[in-house]
Amino acid sequence: MKTHNWNDFISFSTEKKVSLLNRNDRPYHCLLAQQFDRSFLDSLYHLTNVIRAISKSKQGNLYLQSTLPHKKAMLYFMQPSTRTYLSFRTACQILGIQTSDVRDSSISSEVKGESNEDTLRTFSSYFDFIIMRHPEEGIAERAAWVLENSDRTVPVLNAGSGKDQHPTQALLDIYTLRRSFENFGGLKDKTIILAGDLLRGRTVRSLAQMLTHFDGIKLILSSPEKFKMRNDVIDLLKMSSVEVIESDKFKEHLPEADAIYMTRVQDEHDTEGFKSERSLPDFSLTEADLKNLKEHTAIMHPLPRRNELDPAIDNDPRAKYWRQERNGMWSRAALMLMIANKDSEVLNYWNEICRQVNHTAKALPRKRQL
Amino acid sequence: MKTHNWNDFISFSTEKKVSLLNRNDRPYHCLLAQQFDRSFLDSLYHLTNVIRAISKSKQGNLYLQSTLPHKKAMLYFMQPSTRTYLSFRTACQILGIQTSDVRDSSISSEVKGESNEDTLRTFSSYFDFIIMRHPEEGIAERAAWVLENSDRTVPVLNAGSGKDQHPTQALLDIYTLRRSFENFGGLKDKTIILAGDLLRGRTVRSLAQMLTHFDGIKLILSSPEKFKMRNDVIDLLKMSSVEVIESDKFKEHLPEADAIYMTRVQDEHDTEGFKSERSLPDFSLTEADLKNLKEHTAIMHPLPRRNELDPAIDNDPRAKYWRQERNGMWSRAALMLMIANKDSEVLNYWNEICRQVNHTAKALPRKRQL
Amino acid sequence: MKTHNWNDFISFSTEKKVSLLNRNDRPYHCLLAQQFDRSFLDSLYHLTNVIRAISKSKQGNLYLQSTLPHKKAMLYFMQPSTRTYLSFRTACQILGIQTSDVRDSSISSEVKGESNEDTLRTFSSYFDFIIMRHPEEGIAERAAWVLENSDRTVPVLNAGSGKDQHPTQALLDIYTLRRSFENFGGLKDKTIILAGDLLRGRTVRSLAQMLTHFDGIKLILSSPEKFKMRNDVIDLLKMSSVEVIESDKFKEHLPEADAIYMTRVQDEHDTEGFKSERSLPDFSLTEADLKNLKEHTAIMHPLPRRNELDPAIDNDPRAKYWRQERNGMWSRAALMLMIANKDSEVLNYWNEICRQVNHTAKALPRKRQL
Repeated sequence: MKTHNWNDFISFSTEKKVSLLNRNDRPYHCLLAQQFDRSFLDSLYHLTNVIRAISKSKQGNLYLQSTLPHKKAMLYFMQPSTRTYLSFRTACQILGIQTSDVRDSSISSEVKGESNEDTLRTFSSYFDFIIMRHPEEGIAERAAWVLENSDRTVPVLNAGSGKDQHPTQALLDIYTLRRSFENFGGLKDKTIILAGDLLRGRTVRSLAQMLTHFDGIKLILSSPEKFKMRNDVIDLLKMSSVEVIESDKFKEHLPEADAIYMTRVQDEHDTEGFKSERSLPDFSLTEADLKNLKEHTAIMHPLPRRNELDPAIDNDPRAKYWRQERNGMWSRAALMLMIANKDSEVLNYWNEICRQVNHTAKALPRKRQL
Repeated sequence: MKTHNWNDFISFSTEKKVSLLNRNDRPYHCLLAQQFDRSFLDSLYHLTNVIRAISKSKQGNLYLQSTLPHKKAMLYFMQPSTRTYLSFRTACQILGIQTSDVRDSSISSEVKGESNEDTLRTFSSYFDFIIMRHPEEGIAERAAWVLENSDRTVPVLNAGSGKDQHPTQALLDIYTLRRSFENFGGLKDKTIILAGDLLRGRTVRSLAQMLTHFDGIKLILSSPEKFKMRNDVIDLLKMSSVEVIESDKFKEHLPEADAIYMTRVQDEHDTEGFKSERSLPDFSLTEADLKNLKEHTAIMHPLPRRNELDPAIDNDPRAKYWRQERNGMWSRAALMLMIANKDSEVLNYWNEICRQVNHTAKALPRKRQL
Repeated sequence: MKTHNWNDFISFSTEKKVSLLNRNDRPYHCLLAQQFDRSFLDSLYHLTNVIRAISKSKQGNLYLQSTLPHKKAMLYFMQPSTRTYLSFRTACQILGIQTSDVRDSSISSEVKGESNEDTLRTFSSYFDFIIMRHPEEGIAERAAWVLENSDRTVPVLNAGSGKDQHPTQALLDIYTLRRSFENFGGLKDKTIILAGDLLRGRTVRSLAQMLTHFDGIKLILSSPEKFKMRNDVIDLLKMSSVEVIESDKFKEHLPEADAIYMTRVQDEHDTEGFKSERSLPDFSLTEADLKNLKEHTAIMHPLPRRNELDPAIDNDPRAKYWRQERNGMWSRAALMLMIANKDSEVLNYWNEICRQVNHTAKALPRKRQL
């Protein structure tokens, strides 16, 4: 990236950008959902399962904290966030990474007139990872570009920028889908409904793109006309093996769904004058709908929710959104381990544990199970 | 708790609530001063002393940090707080617990319209303890109830809610009283003045209730008529062995006091129109009063203070309020160890240390002393 | 300090203050640039280099984190700050010190009417270091005085107070100068330009004073008439061996400079009505100026910058300001180690490493190099 000027960089194709953001065929900066290919997703799925298994014991937790205690992360969150912020923060804590926050520009040097670029270089002076959420579109790419042109490059992780990309959310969504279908043939040949505000929901945009890596997916994009998924994603899906159906009859599709991914109206990104619309009753899931679902249907939601998802559903075994939320922590920990090239070390640790358990006590085979 | 609906739960007697909040006869959620019986207070007093003793060496500190490093705590403080917040935070640090904060709703997902219940479930996704202060009365109970009805229950610790309860403050007050009377026969047969705004001071309410566990206590409740302790606590005290005297002649009682617990006017809870009143000169302690006190009288204050407690007193050996403040950190560390069932482990460590010291060097008997 | 009242204390000479703030001839409280003598600066320079060298390996990082893990620091920042705050925080993390922040008075007990003194004593109840930045001049001295008169004294570190002192900034500036001249005869017989707002820039004030410890320094103070360095510092420089030149012809002096220290207009301290002035074009450095500099000239800036320093310079090898920024973290870690009297322990560790490396593998001589 060092040799490029910014205007060149932003005009590159996604493919070219991915090649510049990756190192050794895996994400270094993690900015775009397109950086994750199937092989990476498979590795990440396995590693996430291993981390969860290791963390079940105190000793395992201490081992995980010993992987990256010499690293420090900046959580630079210039937009309100609870989940993404906390899950990245706790992911760091799991790996022993020490964190600092900048969440409020009124207590930082920006009030003295510092440029965004200088703020980011400053972070790179003290930290080994920059995890950032920012309202400005493309600012995470800009950060990666600035640091690549400095003499202290550190990985930049996009934790949501503008209404465009939220790549780590897509990772945890894919993880949750695969986990939910573990006993149902895995994530292939499944029918998945994405419902609600598909126009501005950056999580559904990233997720839809990621589903192109799996075979036999039927994707039902269900939204009111004015909240339709934008054509860039539709076109991409149509070029892939995914079967796409656009429909405004959400309830009619419930019986065939293996997974239903609900979203709320993203009115905080509202610049197009939809402001009055805070909920979409026809694209909501209530307790009464449960009887129309398959027995194994996974109900998901990136949260926070409003009334598109009735809390009365929470205790139904098909409600996966609280687990999905917690999976964010595990998936992000796994991602950071991979960026830091510590994944083999952790997998070796786990294999050694399993070997010992098998050797000394055949009676505990469950320990092998992820 | 799982089988109860919320309206049932809040209408239960305190006794029944306590049984639901405790596990194995000790607090799991820690919400009400009534959860602490005498036996628990005795265990906590001993454990707090042991923690303080262990922490005197670097090695001891490292040992304490090794007790709960695999645990994470959320400090959810929706009301201004320095002391309670910092003492909980440092208590966590002493035990190796990693912390995160939510102190400002403008940077969290509540601005996207999330319900309190969902916020709390989110915390339980990432954390092993939820420590919370909130202006809304009963919100900590609600939190415990929500989590008990989820599939990831974690302990909720009430760090002050509404004007009602502040149970951990009462713990550190009792600890400070016992510690102050260690060479004066312990906390029994003592005369204790609670002075100032007894109507709205949640610390004095909790403390008064806790004193019913000790024998021979004479309690002088000294306040202006309009700031009198509410009848619910008076009734409870009268049913116990505590001798209660209500008086608006604060200064007259000074000579007989073994402890004087000062409070400030709680005008931040002001909904009854007392707003003009910021101090109560007749319920203040000045340097001139010192000559009227016994030699061992413990002067206490939950802090922050205004002018009811003259800083000129600070260097008098009877002023215990700065130690009381620091005891908050130790007491809360002890409480969290007990909630996590790690108390026996720590006591064993300490006994082993004492055994070794006695064995290898009879010359160092002070190490046994707490 | 215990025996003095506050009015006496503030009227003491700087020399007398230094003797009260130091313990065993080294800073205990760290408030004034005058506390650092040449011998201390030499020790700190060496220790900073050692810490940087040790931190190059994961094992070295873990060793550093084992030096002060039993200590806790309060970062009390009542003025906006990114760099100073983050570098102190990461310095603590390097040494294993656990941190807490108070950066926003609206979430602390000050809203309940607590005095500054009580807030500081409260911090000393829970923490082993108090690192503070405050708009009020002299408040850090006041803090040290309050704690010296309490029964729990902890070191106070001034991270910038009023427009007067910023001692740790001067430490990292001196470190950066020495480091820059390591292959050019060290920091003696050098010509150094301080440029810009010398009136209100507290960093240049502290730095100028510190340069009196080095021989043969020629100091060019280059500013517009109305932003001239105040006479107190000029007088002090004139009594020393430093040759002082005051000049408003910044550009003319560039060819003779070994180091150029740029500063921005400090309009956040604006009380004298300069408000309209946000930049000083004649005291700016642009890419066009580079050709007039020596090959080894060190370009420095305390950051944040505005347009007095052209970002186009950033990639020139003479631009040292990003390293200078990072040196803040290392210098502050070294300072805290010295305050805690852990410097010998760290130097011994390093000597042992070097001994082992020399013994077992003559092939790795670079390890000895700092």
